[in-house]
Amino acid sequence: MFTIDYFSEIIEAAIADLKLPADPAGLYEPIRYTLDGGGKRLRPVLLLASARAFGVKASTVISQALGIEMFHNFTLLHDDVMDNADVRRGRPTVHRRWNSSTAILSGDAMLTLATRLIADCNAGKLRDVLDLFNTTAMEIYEGQQYDMDFESQTDVSVDRYLEMIRLKTSVLLACACRMGAMLAGADEQSCAALYRYGELLGLAFQLQDDYLDTYGDPALFGKEIGGDIINEKKTWLWINAMNECRGEMTRILDRKLTDYLKIKEIKAVYDSIGLPERSGELIKHYVEQAVEALDNARITPEAREFFVKLAGRTTSRTH
Amino acid sequence: MFTIDYFSEIIEAAIADLKLPADPAGLYEPIRYTLDGGGKRLRPVLLLASARAFGVKASTVISQALGIEMFHNFTLLHDDVMDNADVRRGRPTVHRRWNSSTAILSGDAMLTLATRLIADCNAGKLRDVLDLFNTTAMEIYEGQQYDMDFESQTDVSVDRYLEMIRLKTSVLLACACRMGAMLAGADEQSCAALYRYGELLGLAFQLQDDYLDTYGDPALFGKEIGGDIINEKKTWLWINAMNECRGEMTRILDRKLTDYLKIKEIKAVYDSIGLPERSGELIKHYVEQAVEALDNARITPEAREFFVKLAGRTTSRTH
Repeated sequence: MFTIDYFSEIIEAAIADLKLPADPAGLYEPIRYTLDGGGKRLRPVLLLASARAFGVKASTVISQALGIEMFHNFTLLHDDVMDNADVRRGRPTVHRRWNSSTAILSGDAMLTLATRLIADCNAGKLRDVLDLFNTTAMEIYEGQQYDMDFESQTDVSVDRYLEMIRLKTSVLLACACRMGAMLAGADEQSCAALYRYGELLGLAFQLQDDYLDTYGDPALFGKEIGGDIINEKKTWLWINAMNECRGEMTRILDRKLTDYLKIKEIKAVYDSIGLPERSGELIKHYVEQAVEALDNARITPEAREFFVKLAGRTTSRTH
Repeated sequence: MFTIDYFSEIIEAAIADLKLPADPAGLYEPIRYTLDGGGKRLRPVLLLASARAFGVKASTVISQALGIEMFHNFTLLHDDVMDNADVRRGRPTVHRRWNSSTAILSGDAMLTLATRLIADCNAGKLRDVLDLFNTTAMEIYEGQQYDMDFESQTDVSVDRYLEMIRLKTSVLLACACRMGAMLAGADEQSCAALYRYGELLGLAFQLQDDYLDTYGDPALFGKEIGGDIINEKKTWLWINAMNECRGEMTRILDRKLTDYLKIKEIKAVYDSIGLPERSGELIKHYVEQAVEALDNARITPEAREFFVKLAGRTTSRTH
């Protein structure tokens, strides 16, 4: 079995099985709550698949897959405090359900638990796996910092935006791919190829997320549609509209419209310069590059097909 | 040279030398600000001294000493956000000088940087060093959680309080001692003895800190005297007074006094049941036990003298 569903099931079972102490409940309950919140489990799926692509079965690398998912959930938990977000995956965020101290401390514990899970590997691989993880973590904090910096900047370029999402989102997907391959003893060229695949997939993935925040189906998206516009978040859509129609954008913003009208008017600007289509093309471009990167990985046709299919899913615009 | 000053200077120089990236400034400046805030550097001093006690010089284990200090500063940074503290070591806390998002994210980065520094050791030691560090980190989060839990509990026992400070404060001193010895290739009995020394020193150290918060010399203490009483913090002094004079304590608290009078009246209760002396005796008891623990460590008389002297400093009541 080399399917997303197969790997997802293994991960869900491992998360359900993960033992956490009962006390102090204030520390561990929010961690369980966060892990049980669901999500696509994309990162651990990539890790299991990358190991499998080199003949190593899921159970051998499940601890690292859990570690990457734990780390991802830690970043979401702390990001939600920083963004003062109320809802995550359809449920109250930890700092809303408990309080911000709980969210900070439980998040800290999740980072240490993630490191522990990731370090639980063959001694000969420990140094490289840990270096990869720590380097990736630092890049992700840098990405989050740039994202916050952008809030108060009016002239963010598309290139700086893409570098920000590469750091904030892509490198963790890339890290998951590379770590799976490394743990499976893959050659350096293959490891680098899978890293590049994950990196490009991450860019496509984040651009798609930006697109869906404005153009998604409310029934399928999970969050409210238009949140980025309401918050004037510097997304790829926003930055391009500002670059090309600054006057019109500024006039709309100066009118202090209701959320509903603000979304409608800004969307009309996006539409007028073809941003939905252009964003779709850019996503397609990154997906194609991601698939090309696979050519340098010495993997079986079955594994290749898996990664191609996974990348393809990202361009499907319904969810 | 086997003195506190000698090890402190090496640590200060290494902190000054520590390279951090310039960008993004919002992430790295608060880290530099925090590290430059001073403090006693007790934990890295213990680590360097413990390695030296087994013949290994400071430069060999300086990375781990920095890692422990980085971790300690990370916990202070996040604790200050959770406690909503305004001042740390005479300067505005990071979340006051910048904001709480900055404090959260820079703290996260410090935890990863600490892990990196600690992991920068001999490959044969990596697993044990990392396990010790991660286990200690989890205990510290548990201690912080218990400390927060105590805020809303009226019946905290002395034993639970001591277990809380063991987790929140002692285990990091113990970890520093053990890690230095481990890195120096000490035998397990010596490692365990130094761990126990650090643990007992930590208990004495925290009880002394509690004492000084109420009875310290304002010119030397660095923080305002009486803060724990104002905040009704469950310290060793408070818990004992509540156990033995609950009626009187409750009457004082019910009067909603000014801070000045509240401190004066509560202090009078402490004095009436001899808590300053009893706290001094308990501290002395832990220091004696700490010194006894050294008997099981195969260290030179010079090293032993250093650890004895360091423990003695904790009972000096002037700072």
